[in-house]
Amino acid sequence: MQRQAVALEAAYLLMNHGPVTLVSTAHGERRNVMAASWAMPLDFSPPKVAVVVDRTTLTRELIEASGRFTLNIPCRAIAGQVLAVGSCTGREVDKFATLGIATAPGSVGDAPLIDGCVAWLECRVISEPHNEQRYDLFLGEVLAAWADPRVFADGRWRFDDDALRTIHYLAGGNFLASGDPFTVAGE
Amino acid sequence: MQRQAVALEAAYLLMNHGPVTLVSTAHGERRNVMAASWAMPLDFSPPKVAVVVDRTTLTRELIEASGRFTLNIPCRAIAGQVLAVGSCTGREVDKFATLGIATAPGSVGDAPLIDGCVAWLECRVISEPHNEQRYDLFLGEVLAAWADPRVFADGRWRFDDDALRTIHYLAGGNFLASGDPFTVAGE
Repeated sequence: MQRQAVALEAAYLLMNHGPVTLVSTAHGERRNVMAASWAMPLDFSPPKVAVVVDRTTLTRELIEASGRFTLNIPCRAIAGQVLAVGSCTGREVDKFATLGIATAPGSVGDAPLIDGCVAWLECRVISEPHNEQRYDLFLGEVLAAWADPRVFADGRWRFDDDALRTIHYLAGGNFLASGDPFTVAGE
Repeated sequence: MQRQAVALEAAYLLMNHGPVTLVSTAHGERRNVMAASWAMPLDFSPPKVAVVVDRTTLTRELIEASGRFTLNIPCRAIAGQVLAVGSCTGREVDKFATLGIATAPGSVGDAPLIDGCVAWLECRVISEPHNEQRYDLFLGEVLAAWADPRVFADGRWRFDDDALRTIHYLAGGNFLASGDPFTVAGE
């Protein structure tokens, strides 16, 4: 896993373009990972995020028990794993073992960093029980952020390698890769 | 403006891949449009969305006054307008007149539909004052959804024309176009 620290005030850039995420969690001996397209930045500094986590999931249980989660940003090379972790439940299988997902320890909590991803945002839950119970909506403060310097450095994504492009989920196993960059001149 | 109704239960597909949005609003004689990358689906049916709207904006004032907003999904052809509406304030200029932005009337409220976009989600605010005041976070229920049938039909995006690709904002005038579609076979 190649990773470099990303300054907290730049953490929002890791998600600003709306890629799909993997939510990793751990509590005690248990850990899990699920896919979430419904995640976005919520604030710049301190950086915050919002993510929707269904109440039936093991991930939800582990987030509520630990008060922590990590948003991992996957790339095209592991799109198969992204679909697979979204297609089974951690209540029935150990997704890490079954799907051959390697991890590294988190730096500020127990939630693992998923190998093969290109960015990682380690978060603590900002407790908002009404949002959680009514909307399955969790808010988090980003405590540490990391990126693979091959694709994100100096505050910019650079997708020279198609396999390392971030990805966006549509439906039914269909994704879009993050596409061509272009610049619009300001006024 | 080419648009066809999108079934409400499919409305989340218009935003699932994380494109940048334009938030349009109106109240009385006043109307405005701003850019927002921090927007995501929140529920399938009835469809809900979440969007961050800074407390200093005219858009915020018009949302609070009207209880309505529309999320417009722009495409590459109008990326210049997207950057421009995010670079000035409706308190100082009429963005529609200054930037030459045409609109059509909304179907369920006063918020206009922005011409040149490829999808539109007309929303009513789900009142959550704590989220709005503490996090600038607004939740909405989608009351009507529309898409340009050249790029979204039968629940699928098809980006055959590069100019009609949806776009994702990075920073500093830099965007990514929505890229190549690919499919991962399920287990």
